[in-house]
Amino acid sequence: MTNLYDLAYSLEKSIRESGDYAALKSAFDAVNTDPTTKQLFNNFRELQMKFQTMQMMGQEIPTEEMEAAQLTLTMAQQNPNIVKLMEAEQRFSVVINDVTRIIMKPLEEIYGGNQ
Amino acid sequence: MTNLYDLAYSLEKSIRESGDYAALKSAFDAVNTDPTTKQLFNNFRELQMKFQTMQMMGQEIPTEEMEAAQLTLTMAQQNPNIVKLMEAEQRFSVVINDVTRIIMKPLEEIYGGNQ
Repeated sequence: MTNLYDLAYSLEKSIRESGDYAALKSAFDAVNTDPTTKQLFNNFRELQMKFQTMQMMGQEIPTEEMEAAQLTLTMAQQNPNIVKLMEAEQRFSVVINDVTRIIMKPLEEIYGGNQ
Repeated sequence: MTNLYDLAYSLEKSIRESGDYAALKSAFDAVNTDPTTKQLFNNFRELQMKFQTMQMMGQEIPTEEMEAAQLTLTMAQQNPNIVKLMEAEQRFSVVINDVTRIIMKPLEEIYGGNQ
């Protein structure tokens, strides 16, 4: 049996060498090397997280807050570098979710149905 | 480069064949084959989760609720099979946390310091 940790490190290397990772890194760098785009993206992320948290906690987003945020949301969604980064994140998250699901399967088999 | 998904499946196999996984499975089975122990463990887990959630949300646990829970908590902590399961979970979670930290490192390198 190959050592569990060796396999984890090989998997890490494989993730690092994957096309999806390279695409994510280059999209991230493209957004973050331009201060204006970086600022817009960070504002967008903050708003996104804030609204998601509010939704999860069952709070309505007040109309005036939504209106104040609208310009940031629209500008971010129209910025090609930000759109590319969001798409790259989406593709990379599919890989990471798959990997996590695979390696968590043994644990799920114990805790999944038997409680 | 070995295929990323092949490596994920090899890692899954290695986790499944590890001593820590076998120990977890046997400890879980020991708790769950005895209906009384199983019930006690489930009650204990529920209370633990409820109190943790309350703490995370900054809520005090009311004294009367704590007192009502005390018997369950004490009984669970004195049940050798439940103690063994909690210890096995603790050891297995070290492995899983290590593995997760290793494979998330590439992602952390992108998002870690640069925001």
